[in-house]
Amino acid sequence: MSAPPFLWRIRVYYEDTDATGLVYHADYLRFFERARTEWLRSLGFEQSALRRTDSVIFAVVSANLRYLEPARVDELLEVSVALRGRARASLTLAQSISRDPATVLCEADIRVACLDAASYRPKRIPPKILAELSDGD
Amino acid sequence: MSAPPFLWRIRVYYEDTDATGLVYHADYLRFFERARTEWLRSLGFEQSALRRTDSVIFAVVSANLRYLEPARVDELLEVSVALRGRARASLTLAQSISRDPATVLCEADIRVACLDAASYRPKRIPPKILAELSDGD
Amino acid sequence: MSAPPFLWRIRVYYEDTDATGLVYHADYLRFFERARTEWLRSLGFEQSALRRTDSVIFAVVSANLRYLEPARVDELLEVSVALRGRARASLTLAQSISRDPATVLCEADIRVACLDAASYRPKRIPPKILAELSDGD
Amino acid sequence: MSAPPFLWRIRVYYEDTDATGLVYHADYLRFFERARTEWLRSLGFEQSALRRTDSVIFAVVSANLRYLEPARVDELLEVSVALRGRARASLTLAQSISRDPATVLCEADIRVACLDAASYRPKRIPPKILAELSDGD
Repeated sequence: MSAPPFLWRIRVYYEDTDATGLVYHADYLRFFERARTEWLRSLGFEQSALRRTDSVIFAVVSANLRYLEPARVDELLEVSVALRGRARASLTLAQSISRDPATVLCEADIRVACLDAASYRPKRIPPKILAELSDGD
Repeated sequence: MSAPPFLWRIRVYYEDTDATGLVYHADYLRFFERARTEWLRSLGFEQSALRRTDSVIFAVVSANLRYLEPARVDELLEVSVALRGRARASLTLAQSISRDPATVLCEADIRVACLDAASYRPKRIPPKILAELSDGD
Repeated sequence: MSAPPFLWRIRVYYEDTDATGLVYHADYLRFFERARTEWLRSLGFEQSALRRTDSVIFAVVSANLRYLEPARVDELLEVSVALRGRARASLTLAQSISRDPATVLCEADIRVACLDAASYRPKRIPPKILAELSDGD
Repeated sequence: MSAPPFLWRIRVYYEDTDATGLVYHADYLRFFERARTEWLRSLGFEQSALRRTDSVIFAVVSANLRYLEPARVDELLEVSVALRGRARASLTLAQSISRDPATVLCEADIRVACLDAASYRPKRIPPKILAELSDGD
């Protein structure tokens, strides 16, 4: 699990800011999810397809966020995804949002559970995904 | 169709504003929909129940918005809903957002279509809803 | 600090849900902030006024979220705010979102810092706020 | 004003959808604004810089939206921007969102006003912007 983290760039628009002039704190969770979605896509998996073919969805079950520096409109941010652990029905990820490699704006530890798309009950992560995750992440 | 409009109060929070210091323009559409939802609820209909029991959803098919005055965080706004027309599978509504009766911030003409919840194809509005709409709106 | 928590009711609208059929995880942070805003308002403080008169804003510096049960559209949720600690320039709050007293959907530990509204640097919480917080919370 | 429209690609994430399974109607306004922001950036202008150096912001004053086909999560959409008119203090734009060139999902006529960033009153569009707009758009 020492592969370099997956990186995804996100531009900040007015929609992401609030009247304090800074990025609204809840929007960091949206940025983190976009990066996780693109990380899965880079491994060959699209969540809408997984839902149709395997009847699974991924849901956040815990998120620990540390806001270190504010972000502003028009900034181009880099969001990282690193796999920290995997269980039968959940994944643990370390994520960060940076302005540049030396300036981390927000760090997060996020656990996502694999759920049945109809019953919302925990469900084993499809083996084809686990196989990709063991190749280096 | 000369009944007084339905009114619904909405508080502006930081989440609704952007870095210009004003309410973000797309959020007015969220405010308008909250008021339409509460208008339907006041008539005895909950959209999640309609979806389960009648397999219908309502989708916006057109929206004409005029932004007249900006709104700011902490303001308490009043959102109106007035039925302007109904067809077999759609409703036309006139809506506005006001700071006080004399100060309209945004006006909208919105048409919503009744769709089948599974196929997303146009579907006749359930008669029980039309019956309530003819009672004065 | 053993006063009963402040409670605020929030209705779930379509805007708060995603294609899984459940409330989108980032929106819980919006719900938590609405309740904190109303808690401050119940103590006599409006954030927009504090910004103008005292040049302070409150910013979330950490949030630990545990998602226990999903919420769905049309539900009426109850959001709580309990003060757990206060420092010179920050407050620590325990918050939860419940469907009913027996069913907690999400729990959060949230720390907000008091910042200067122009420089975004830490700033002492205005004494008039601390005075209200010591009266029971 | 017969130049080809500016095009910007946008990926649909779960954050953009609602419990009907489709993209939430208000989010199209966010997509349209992202494209307008990138169009201005492609002409050499960043809105945060314009605000600092010229004390101007752009605000939507009217938006006429026609929703033709729904969009779903994971789709890659193309958003267009075409200048249709310019006045002393406002621009009129025709925009669309397409799945592919043959499938338009949403069309919009949007007017944005140039405002003073402090007073929010109409203000002449900076000549350097008008100069770029006359070069072909």
